[in-house]
Amino acid sequence: MTTTLIRGGTVVSATGRAAADVLIDGERIQAVLAPDSVLLGTDVAASVDTVIDATGKFVIPGGIDAHTHMELPFGGTEASDTFETGTRAAAWGGTTSIIDFAVQTYGKRIEDGLATWHEKAAGNCAIDYGFHQIVGDVNDDSLAAMRGLVDEGISSFKLFMAYPGVFYSDDAQILKAMQLSRDTGMLTMMHAENGPAIDVLAAQLVEQRKTDPFYHGVARAWEMEEEATHRAIMLAKLTGAPLYVVHVSAKQAVEQIAWARDKGQNVFGETCPQYLYLSLEEQLGAVSEKWGAFEGAKWVCSTPLRSREEGHQNAMWQSLRTNDVQMVSTDHCPFCMKDQKELGLGDFRKIPNGIGSIEHRMDLMYQGVVTGEITLERWVELTSTTPARMFGLYGQKGVIQPGADADVVVYDPNGHTSIGMPVDEAGNPTGRSHHMNMDHSAWEGFEIDGHVDTVVSRGKVVVDGGEYLGAAGDGRFLKRGLSQYLV
Amino acid sequence: MTTTLIRGGTVVSATGRAAADVLIDGERIQAVLAPDSVLLGTDVAASVDTVIDATGKFVIPGGIDAHTHMELPFGGTEASDTFETGTRAAAWGGTTSIIDFAVQTYGKRIEDGLATWHEKAAGNCAIDYGFHQIVGDVNDDSLAAMRGLVDEGISSFKLFMAYPGVFYSDDAQILKAMQLSRDTGMLTMMHAENGPAIDVLAAQLVEQRKTDPFYHGVARAWEMEEEATHRAIMLAKLTGAPLYVVHVSAKQAVEQIAWARDKGQNVFGETCPQYLYLSLEEQLGAVSEKWGAFEGAKWVCSTPLRSREEGHQNAMWQSLRTNDVQMVSTDHCPFCMKDQKELGLGDFRKIPNGIGSIEHRMDLMYQGVVTGEITLERWVELTSTTPARMFGLYGQKGVIQPGADADVVVYDPNGHTSIGMPVDEAGNPTGRSHHMNMDHSAWEGFEIDGHVDTVVSRGKVVVDGGEYLGAAGDGRFLKRGLSQYLV
Amino acid sequence: MTTTLIRGGTVVSATGRAAADVLIDGERIQAVLAPDSVLLGTDVAASVDTVIDATGKFVIPGGIDAHTHMELPFGGTEASDTFETGTRAAAWGGTTSIIDFAVQTYGKRIEDGLATWHEKAAGNCAIDYGFHQIVGDVNDDSLAAMRGLVDEGISSFKLFMAYPGVFYSDDAQILKAMQLSRDTGMLTMMHAENGPAIDVLAAQLVEQRKTDPFYHGVARAWEMEEEATHRAIMLAKLTGAPLYVVHVSAKQAVEQIAWARDKGQNVFGETCPQYLYLSLEEQLGAVSEKWGAFEGAKWVCSTPLRSREEGHQNAMWQSLRTNDVQMVSTDHCPFCMKDQKELGLGDFRKIPNGIGSIEHRMDLMYQGVVTGEITLERWVELTSTTPARMFGLYGQKGVIQPGADADVVVYDPNGHTSIGMPVDEAGNPTGRSHHMNMDHSAWEGFEIDGHVDTVVSRGKVVVDGGEYLGAAGDGRFLKRGLSQYLV
Amino acid sequence: MTTTLIRGGTVVSATGRAAADVLIDGERIQAVLAPDSVLLGTDVAASVDTVIDATGKFVIPGGIDAHTHMELPFGGTEASDTFETGTRAAAWGGTTSIIDFAVQTYGKRIEDGLATWHEKAAGNCAIDYGFHQIVGDVNDDSLAAMRGLVDEGISSFKLFMAYPGVFYSDDAQILKAMQLSRDTGMLTMMHAENGPAIDVLAAQLVEQRKTDPFYHGVARAWEMEEEATHRAIMLAKLTGAPLYVVHVSAKQAVEQIAWARDKGQNVFGETCPQYLYLSLEEQLGAVSEKWGAFEGAKWVCSTPLRSREEGHQNAMWQSLRTNDVQMVSTDHCPFCMKDQKELGLGDFRKIPNGIGSIEHRMDLMYQGVVTGEITLERWVELTSTTPARMFGLYGQKGVIQPGADADVVVYDPNGHTSIGMPVDEAGNPTGRSHHMNMDHSAWEGFEIDGHVDTVVSRGKVVVDGGEYLGAAGDGRFLKRGLSQYLV
Ligand SMILES: [Zn+2]
Ligand SMILES: [Zn+2]
Ligand SMILES: [Zn+2]
Ligand SMILES: [Zn+2]
Ligand SMILES: [Zn+2]
Ligand SMILES: [Zn+2]
Ligand SMILES: [Zn+2]
Ligand SMILES: [Zn+2]
Repeated sequence: MTTTLIRGGTVVSATGRAAADVLIDGERIQAVLAPDSVLLGTDVAASVDTVIDATGKFVIPGGIDAHTHMELPFGGTEASDTFETGTRAAAWGGTTSIIDFAVQTYGKRIEDGLATWHEKAAGNCAIDYGFHQIVGDVNDDSLAAMRGLVDEGISSFKLFMAYPGVFYSDDAQILKAMQLSRDTGMLTMMHAENGPAIDVLAAQLVEQRKTDPFYHGVARAWEMEEEATHRAIMLAKLTGAPLYVVHVSAKQAVEQIAWARDKGQNVFGETCPQYLYLSLEEQLGAVSEKWGAFEGAKWVCSTPLRSREEGHQNAMWQSLRTNDVQMVSTDHCPFCMKDQKELGLGDFRKIPNGIGSIEHRMDLMYQGVVTGEITLERWVELTSTTPARMFGLYGQKGVIQPGADADVVVYDPNGHTSIGMPVDEAGNPTGRSHHMNMDHSAWEGFEIDGHVDTVVSRGKVVVDGGEYLGAAGDGRFLKRGLSQYLV
Repeated sequence: MTTTLIRGGTVVSATGRAAADVLIDGERIQAVLAPDSVLLGTDVAASVDTVIDATGKFVIPGGIDAHTHMELPFGGTEASDTFETGTRAAAWGGTTSIIDFAVQTYGKRIEDGLATWHEKAAGNCAIDYGFHQIVGDVNDDSLAAMRGLVDEGISSFKLFMAYPGVFYSDDAQILKAMQLSRDTGMLTMMHAENGPAIDVLAAQLVEQRKTDPFYHGVARAWEMEEEATHRAIMLAKLTGAPLYVVHVSAKQAVEQIAWARDKGQNVFGETCPQYLYLSLEEQLGAVSEKWGAFEGAKWVCSTPLRSREEGHQNAMWQSLRTNDVQMVSTDHCPFCMKDQKELGLGDFRKIPNGIGSIEHRMDLMYQGVVTGEITLERWVELTSTTPARMFGLYGQKGVIQPGADADVVVYDPNGHTSIGMPVDEAGNPTGRSHHMNMDHSAWEGFEIDGHVDTVVSRGKVVVDGGEYLGAAGDGRFLKRGLSQYLV
Repeated sequence: MTTTLIRGGTVVSATGRAAADVLIDGERIQAVLAPDSVLLGTDVAASVDTVIDATGKFVIPGGIDAHTHMELPFGGTEASDTFETGTRAAAWGGTTSIIDFAVQTYGKRIEDGLATWHEKAAGNCAIDYGFHQIVGDVNDDSLAAMRGLVDEGISSFKLFMAYPGVFYSDDAQILKAMQLSRDTGMLTMMHAENGPAIDVLAAQLVEQRKTDPFYHGVARAWEMEEEATHRAIMLAKLTGAPLYVVHVSAKQAVEQIAWARDKGQNVFGETCPQYLYLSLEEQLGAVSEKWGAFEGAKWVCSTPLRSREEGHQNAMWQSLRTNDVQMVSTDHCPFCMKDQKELGLGDFRKIPNGIGSIEHRMDLMYQGVVTGEITLERWVELTSTTPARMFGLYGQKGVIQPGADADVVVYDPNGHTSIGMPVDEAGNPTGRSHHMNMDHSAWEGFEIDGHVDTVVSRGKVVVDGGEYLGAAGDGRFLKRGLSQYLV
Repeated sequence: MTTTLIRGGTVVSATGRAAADVLIDGERIQAVLAPDSVLLGTDVAASVDTVIDATGKFVIPGGIDAHTHMELPFGGTEASDTFETGTRAAAWGGTTSIIDFAVQTYGKRIEDGLATWHEKAAGNCAIDYGFHQIVGDVNDDSLAAMRGLVDEGISSFKLFMAYPGVFYSDDAQILKAMQLSRDTGMLTMMHAENGPAIDVLAAQLVEQRKTDPFYHGVARAWEMEEEATHRAIMLAKLTGAPLYVVHVSAKQAVEQIAWARDKGQNVFGETCPQYLYLSLEEQLGAVSEKWGAFEGAKWVCSTPLRSREEGHQNAMWQSLRTNDVQMVSTDHCPFCMKDQKELGLGDFRKIPNGIGSIEHRMDLMYQGVVTGEITLERWVELTSTTPARMFGLYGQKGVIQPGADADVVVYDPNGHTSIGMPVDEAGNPTGRSHHMNMDHSAWEGFEIDGHVDTVVSRGKVVVDGGEYLGAAGDGRFLKRGLSQYLV
């Protein structure tokens, strides 16, 4: 098999950093060595097939984005990234694994939803991929089907306290699913917003002709995220289920999670770059020449962007430092403005929910290192090591150690990345990066003081020198084990 | 240089485990490799000088005990372990580094205290050692001297809110020292008990002829630990100093630490095995034929053992799971009953404070893995990785990675360890282990479902096959950097 | 009109006590006077029609029981006290006003439910009575009807988070009703238990043949009371509605209420004597010769009696001291064992929920004064003054002051009351008191170090010298105003 | 004796209001009566000596200012109000009782301090007065003397955690005094600021030439108020002493008090109008033509005015609503700018600490009713009823009921009061009110939508129609009982 040496870099882990070389043999990491090793008489660098020079750069485990929605049907349209386009964009950004959500909707069978997802992904992915299972209809059949998922490498399922009539589970259903979670060890993932209450508020706003994207954020009040988070925690406490709250955006929801964690409960939280950087006032309330107040539609997602004046963004950064929130995923779910977001002109409830960020997560979080929000080690922990541990991938993914898949990113702290559409409306090149299948960027104009130089996925260099060298089908399905993060 | 391969074991880190071999070249780790590697044509195992078989065993970074008091003068006597006997016992127990406390007492110079400590330790230690500086007299001179300590590799100092007239600092002194802590990056360590209040209570008890060791625990009420902990936190908040609270034993003190940490403050806590396993009722209140109610003197230490009925022990275990307490040290400070603890017959205030545990920390904490209190990874994190990060040793210590000192322990989960005096009072062998210089064991009769098989210290096998193979002077002084654990 | 002087007693209010005489003229209090007043030349005692001697006794405002269910249909039967029998028993116990719950059930009109309640009560009551409105079906019609209630003197309505299919409101309904609460100033009362979750647990227990009354308490876990309490608080916060949580029994629910109150939210809690004195283990788990383990059925109510081992009872007493719970009502809802509680033999879910306590509330709470749980003033505040303020009756009720209705109780701290059935099963007199229409007492054997001597209701002596002197129809409907207790 | 009827008003108590007339006979209240009573044939109004018409006005118990410092020696000068001038100003403002602090300083005898205070006050006061005892030197002698104070009607003592070398008690002294507090039932009052730490900060600021009054507020950081408050709470918990924290100004200190109260501890807090209305930025940071940045000296007091940006003022108002703070006193301690405050030109540490507010407390707090911060009832509770209960005066003071001293204020909600110096610098009348012995007003320009019309002190009209009708010596010493507010 091909051997590769990543040489001269600083290997960063969740706990520290070391000057070390990484030897790859085929798809796996063979050894981590002292720099420039002459190992028992053998000059390692001289003996390998390929040497990647990482001098002055960080060598980190490939990013794991544990929350994506490729090709997700939503509100009469479908997320604009396929598994092919989405995972390729991921690779561009230093992410080498995703965990996408297979979907069971109300009245359908879990087995069929899962099969559909396997079909969508198989042979199309640039990087490795696993699945969580969305359970949109908890009943005796689906509970039986859920028990079988662990053997198929799907060790987590997601319920919704929002979206009545689509994905919504009531508390009786949640309770039953959580009992199964406790029994099987599967992780319960929760979209924690009080949907029935939010829908009343949203309808009242529309009735009052408050139909702009801004009111999407008003309707989805933080009180209803906090409430649902607390409720999920108590149901988890009652049943003994481990609980993972997705896309936490309100500081008060963090307080609830911290409260449960202080008592030793297995409760975890995930946030997304949008909740760290963007806000109700600036983005959801944006006005443009082209779109007017509908400009904000670009940032309609749920949970919504929160008020900066109320201080949620700073609090979310802090939650990353205190480990009250343990991971950063993207909730990648892109929609174009044209034909997609446009569906909600005149009624924010009809705007497809989602933002495309899969390509920029590693960069956006690295910028938090630059600005002093988090440490370099915490960056790796939040984006790769903890996601691997949380979702039963650690050892294979999330760490640079012998035996692990050779998913490695060489990140240059002296590089620079400008995010945005590569060509402006007039057709002129902008020097900005964006590879997701969208007609706009939610991150237009963000500047990053660092750069993804080289991306190795299972031993293959898929991004290097500003070129994509991989292919659809490089990525394989990941059978995951149970969470390795429980206390 | 000599090469050694530790082969076939499971390497455990703070974040996970891996089947891997560890290649040592001289005093350092050269590589971590996939098991049974044939590396670029070279059969590694066949090429090294020595192979240590770790099949079926855990391979962990050597333990770091960050809180010891060798030869400490206290109450007219001196801790019974010298640097030679104490560090040898440490090696027996899988601990390969200690950080001891150099002492400045009231009215003395820091420089002199530190020099004395270097003299005591130099050439005598079985394992590597560093120093914290106890500052017993904060004044202009000592503040000036403290600024020089970082360059000498002493990046932390300890103050006392207890022991008026001996080590005690008042709040004005603490404030000034903490300002220096903020300015220099040195860690402020704090003995957090309200000494002036406790001394009043103790005197009142003695006046009431309540003089047994049990009343040591009564006088040092948890309220006064909680109070001092809160006070230290607020002074740290005011100044911006990072704060490390030593030997936390009260659940309410943990609540204060958790409260500060939830707000993102750099506040840390350490506990000790005695606060996890032993109690006011069982140990401080013990009665023996030989010693009567003075039997409890064996366990007189400060902070004291807490009431089991009040639930402190369970809460301390939980604090280890929630990371509200980040480390386990021993506060090793042994005294014999004869001639030493005896000084307090008739007045518990005169009992030298301290328990000897340095030898048993790794075992006692491993037993927490066996009983399900903590995970295997957390065991390594609490006893080695976090101590290294906390006190500026990470990279050299606390981790198995290329370039690190070859401090490695092979731990057998199928072995067994009986703790206690090897010979009973009648002179018969007991099959129990104890190598500290004491006339009793504070841990007599504790059984551990695991065993320290082999201990490698900077590349040298110092314990193996039930034999001590090291020598006084093997250990070197550790110049430490600033904490690598701050958020 | 008739004049009466209550003379020589100690008048107790919510804030203190005074030696004072109370002059009643007709139905109202005319004056409160210095003892033995010769007022501007007139010897008051000599000039009135009647003098009641209260020397050595407490003179307090008549009790207000703000939570009763006379003749309530429940599970195929009906609460065994009519307005006549129930209010007479209330008078016996020193309670001179009740607020009962008019009932709208699912699918019915509020107006009809209220009319029915007026019919049941009119002309039958021994004491004054008001109504809250239970809203079992929040929809556009009932919301419209609710707006009219304030004018009819009904300034509070109650929703249920439990009992799906009977009284249950989902969060969308609660939100709408609370918006009306904010708009009108009506108080939202909440039965805070997560019914859908509880019903799953209950069904699972029955499936496991755990059908005894004890499992009623197991199924209705405190976690589900805590959860619903938090949810109600957040919905109230979102809408701005004042919230009153009925029959709080779990200490964790109190914590939620305290948390909201500390932030200044208008959130209130009520508890009942059963949650202060009785427990899961002792009462719900009771076994008798006659009924076996079904004995516990006597104490099946919701929220259920809580575990004494978990410490709820002590916490509830404390909540009365800290004012985190502001009132004590009874939730009086009696059922006989025969033909009523018996319906649940073999399935605890079918046991009619309720305990009869209306007669004993003043005595049981006074016993808390005797045992030092609460002060004498707090007794008056919890049982009369705050209920009056909370529900818009203050001035007319809840206080001894000129202009107020002459509802006055003379309570003898040197008297004694034995609670229980007056005749034992063999037909022998027991010397115990019980006047409710039940075939058993939930308080059998409770001894009170005090005695209700004289009860004056709107100027008429209705109980005195161990005799009932009132008549059905003495009591009138109370048109209540808005709450006078909001901050 | 003279009889007076206050007629036609609304009598307001801590729990509610009533249309009632108040009959005074001599120094006491004889009766509270229904309006316009013809009592047993006697037309009351026609029969009394004097009728005060209170139609359209509030009739409230006279204000009790429980924290004043007349003639207090401080920093080489003395508070500018004597008992005569200060109590006269109090009467002008509707305050009919004060509790002043008798002073023991370090090295002096309590008995002597108390005797001095009696001498200062006797024969000079316009209204009744009591004493707390400041204990500035806790030792065996003073502890013995403190035991005798209860019999002298002094049921509370005050300790200082600030002012080392003047009033400061260390924790050992506090502990001993609190044990006495528990034993005797005396209330421990605490000035809770960490003096030793503050003095370091203050000295450092002065060294940096930051000498303006503004830095008084910087040096006395809220962290040091919070810390001391927590410490006092824990010492009180340890000993079982009831604790009353004076002049609470930081929201974080309130959180500590709320935390203790939620657990049922007897901990109380007092705040002052300056902490509700004034701020670090606006007042301590004020600049005037006459005084430049020294203008802020007018508002130098301790605890200091807090930052409005940090939100303390709003939080203090909220604490009054939640009853986490139970009382409002003034800490009246006036100093003139000339010759007094001037002492601190060039060094804020030398500015005498204190603000004069005794005259305006009732008005300033009533304005909180007008603006909706508190209810009318809460106004009476905070300024009169709770002070009376807290300090053992209830029944005699703090309530309008038969037997109580006839201390009554007629307050006109339709009146208006302009606060400030009655004559401006040019000698022109301003129409503003100020009767304290000061050369400036700390409340210049405050406008109140209400007016103190008539003040009755022990039956004598001392203020009416804008005239002072009382005399020095009207006021008598109040022997107080133990607190009536403990739970
Ligand atoms: Zn979601
Ligand atoms: Zn999602
Ligand atoms: Zn210590
Ligand atoms: Zn120590
Ligand atoms: Zn209910
Ligand atoms: Zn009820
Ligand atoms: Zn003070
Ligand atoms: Zn003062």
